[in-house]
Amino acid sequence: MSRRKTQITSDIAWSTRDSIVVRGLSLPDEILGHFNLGDMAFLELTGRRPTPQESIVFNAIVITLVEHGITPSAIAARMTYLGAPESLQGAVAAGLCGLGTRFVGTMEGASKMLYEALPRSAVGTGVDLDALARETVARMRADKIMIPGLGHPVHKPEDPRTPRLFQIAAENGLSGDYIALMRHIGRHAEAASGKSLPINATGAIGAICCEFGFPWEVVRGFGVMARAIGLVGHIMEEREKPFAFETWQRLEEEALAAHGLTRE
Amino acid sequence: MSRRKTQITSDIAWSTRDSIVVRGLSLPDEILGHFNLGDMAFLELTGRRPTPQESIVFNAIVITLVEHGITPSAIAARMTYLGAPESLQGAVAAGLCGLGTRFVGTMEGASKMLYEALPRSAVGTGVDLDALARETVARMRADKIMIPGLGHPVHKPEDPRTPRLFQIAAENGLSGDYIALMRHIGRHAEAASGKSLPINATGAIGAICCEFGFPWEVVRGFGVMARAIGLVGHIMEEREKPFAFETWQRLEEEALAAHGLTRE
Amino acid sequence: MSRRKTQITSDIAWSTRDSIVVRGLSLPDEILGHFNLGDMAFLELTGRRPTPQESIVFNAIVITLVEHGITPSAIAARMTYLGAPESLQGAVAAGLCGLGTRFVGTMEGASKMLYEALPRSAVGTGVDLDALARETVARMRADKIMIPGLGHPVHKPEDPRTPRLFQIAAENGLSGDYIALMRHIGRHAEAASGKSLPINATGAIGAICCEFGFPWEVVRGFGVMARAIGLVGHIMEEREKPFAFETWQRLEEEALAAHGLTRE
Amino acid sequence: MSRRKTQITSDIAWSTRDSIVVRGLSLPDEILGHFNLGDMAFLELTGRRPTPQESIVFNAIVITLVEHGITPSAIAARMTYLGAPESLQGAVAAGLCGLGTRFVGTMEGASKMLYEALPRSAVGTGVDLDALARETVARMRADKIMIPGLGHPVHKPEDPRTPRLFQIAAENGLSGDYIALMRHIGRHAEAASGKSLPINATGAIGAICCEFGFPWEVVRGFGVMARAIGLVGHIMEEREKPFAFETWQRLEEEALAAHGLTRE
Repeated sequence: MSRRKTQITSDIAWSTRDSIVVRGLSLPDEILGHFNLGDMAFLELTGRRPTPQESIVFNAIVITLVEHGITPSAIAARMTYLGAPESLQGAVAAGLCGLGTRFVGTMEGASKMLYEALPRSAVGTGVDLDALARETVARMRADKIMIPGLGHPVHKPEDPRTPRLFQIAAENGLSGDYIALMRHIGRHAEAASGKSLPINATGAIGAICCEFGFPWEVVRGFGVMARAIGLVGHIMEEREKPFAFETWQRLEEEALAAHGLTRE
Repeated sequence: MSRRKTQITSDIAWSTRDSIVVRGLSLPDEILGHFNLGDMAFLELTGRRPTPQESIVFNAIVITLVEHGITPSAIAARMTYLGAPESLQGAVAAGLCGLGTRFVGTMEGASKMLYEALPRSAVGTGVDLDALARETVARMRADKIMIPGLGHPVHKPEDPRTPRLFQIAAENGLSGDYIALMRHIGRHAEAASGKSLPINATGAIGAICCEFGFPWEVVRGFGVMARAIGLVGHIMEEREKPFAFETWQRLEEEALAAHGLTRE
Repeated sequence: MSRRKTQITSDIAWSTRDSIVVRGLSLPDEILGHFNLGDMAFLELTGRRPTPQESIVFNAIVITLVEHGITPSAIAARMTYLGAPESLQGAVAAGLCGLGTRFVGTMEGASKMLYEALPRSAVGTGVDLDALARETVARMRADKIMIPGLGHPVHKPEDPRTPRLFQIAAENGLSGDYIALMRHIGRHAEAASGKSLPINATGAIGAICCEFGFPWEVVRGFGVMARAIGLVGHIMEEREKPFAFETWQRLEEEALAAHGLTRE
Repeated sequence: MSRRKTQITSDIAWSTRDSIVVRGLSLPDEILGHFNLGDMAFLELTGRRPTPQESIVFNAIVITLVEHGITPSAIAARMTYLGAPESLQGAVAAGLCGLGTRFVGTMEGASKMLYEALPRSAVGTGVDLDALARETVARMRADKIMIPGLGHPVHKPEDPRTPRLFQIAAENGLSGDYIALMRHIGRHAEAASGKSLPINATGAIGAICCEFGFPWEVVRGFGVMARAIGLVGHIMEEREKPFAFETWQRLEEEALAAHGLTRE
């Protein structure tokens, strides 16, 4: 007996002879010239046009994720470009492969933690956020789970992106229970650990994504799309002011010397 | 004797305790809340802020590249997500790997062709663009090289993105010799081949990139960064309305049947 | 105050003017002509030469993982090749990105489960494997965790690779407590669920990897290296007998029809 | 009018309830326990079982490509693993993306050059290989094309892999016109340039691939599949003796210092 086929379908976009439609809007007529790239990403992912306020906040959070200087991801992209300069897309792909649990993952972790503590249906019902934060911190510490979105190895005493992102969210009507809860969690985590644990950019973005109501699973996607832009920037710089070759040579020489050898 | 070390350096971005600088601008103070994502990409890649006119045109060309419906690249990303749903970044990376010579490459091909015909130093010197186009078409046809940026398998008689992109460029002072040259090339190619060869979106974008003065090598990068956004969109849809599994099953069944076999 | 540097070093391989050493052996003199590719993989990963018996078993488990027909991973590789035929490496990379938790992950899951039930230090101490299996199955069922390495959607009543792999392991002195434990687990899982749950190839390989004493974290690596071979095979076939383009066209047409549209 | 469908088919492998067939052989009965991994790769790619002599030579060439110490590709894989340790497959994929024209490409370049000079139909027809080599070198020098497969930055005066690979080929009846032609080309290139240009390992392997009659397009695939094994080895070492984090820190500190900054 034969398997029942299911329908192949996609609601994102389609083209015919004379039309190109993305999320129900005509690309030439309703999108080009009217949207900026952040709005287009919002449309692509949510299926609707952002409000002017959402546009400002969403562009800000994605922009924050574009460029973090010399990261492992940028180094991987540059090393890949050294071997395959004809394949810029492969170098970007290599850089993206490292956007996993260690770096970009904390952002989705923050969103997930906030949603688990405060489901969307409970927003605005007068839940005691301070008590909720205290419980969340206590439970995570008991389970020895690191609280995502807090602390930073370099930015001290605070991450300069966080107050600015929260300000932009507040000015545009997107500062509600989730940002408040994240702040309470930060405060309780500091009290419990005795360490300074400022909310970092991934924590701020994770909280703002909850204000938008984005599912936590999509949050990593924002980091991935934004970093693709940054990686193209690094590859362009590598073309003119390379450091991949020099890095490779140094590593190989040092490793050889560790075995008492030289190449010559 | 020892190798001379070269300096490791990058001018894109850096962070200290209390500052984060991208291309010379303070990320929290001068970028967040002031830039949209397209402007940020422009800053990242060129090292300067776009003018308001450049911002409109640049956002339009990158937005055009975000989403093309069900492409081989989107299918590859969805297939990858099916096997590794925990690694959204890997699915996007897999999709990007296919943005090579066949699709996105025609855009850089168009820019390269235009720069080779008309070096930037010759712009505005009163070169006869019509004659230049005739020679370019004749030479490429003699060498049996396909002229990039012309014709489209679906959009007929014209690609609806092209007039709109050229209009946006013209309204913002970015329609000069390169767009004119591309139009002449299209006309001569049609005359020489006897076929309808409208300028397609990759040809239009390739020409506009020349108006900006972007090196042709970076042009593919715009496609890669834009498509990363589109691929995140496809993976999000695959989570809720998947078609990768169904596609896989159909392909396997048909290939099995071609050998006279069934699974059962 | 300055960070303390740590030494960059690698014990895998190095080259000087006249020598190339991999894992302490001269590549030209001691490896080439003496090793097969499976032995080389064993050397690369364990740092030692396999015994003749280990060579037979290790080659068999890795060979099992090379080729599984039309898989999502092979489809992703072929789609990528369609877009970037100049970048064979990118097509293989795209295919590998999907070797995540869903497919290859069950193999490492089986190894992990066996090591957690029976640490290496407990092997040969006369533990009651039947009781251990009963507890393991009961605990996993209580926690609603799927037992990895059991059952197969196609191969019924048994996976034909499993008895053969276990036979090869037994003939070469590599069938001990872990394979026995896996069999007990299979039996108890069938009894508890009332369903037929034969040990599949990933379960068999997971158990054999425990017999070798490989850390469970490396097990996915065997799948990745083996599948790279298979993916090169699929890309070579795609060059001569392609199906990526046809698949793409069908998907796009069906999705368009679902919206009541045609391209023409 | 509707598009004509083409048949989806693959001759590589298929499975039914009780059988698994790869290239016409039963995996459990005819492959497992009888093949080594190199033979399996040969079967996968050529569709036939290697002869005992072919097995020795093919295993040797693929083994040569497994491990080259600390390469840009290995560095990219380790950097990726640092960010996404849960995705070993992504780290291998990132490393493979760099196997492009710069490194592995010379091998396919050598095969292509040899086939263009001496088509397979001309083998054994008594062509003057010395004259052919002289012309090939002269033409490539006139066109300013680098002759692939000659010279090595480290191995001097000769690459120790080359004589060994040629010896293994000769001992197994696979040393014919193509290896002879490669040697003539090396000699003429040295005479014309006045520099020492020994045949390197990629040149030797490119020539041996021609002896096998492999299409030059598949040659890069051997490098890709072999290096996947080496990259798994590097990721396993990175787990226990990492150097990615230290490398990242050093690069970031040096780049910061170049701008007169420190993190603190």
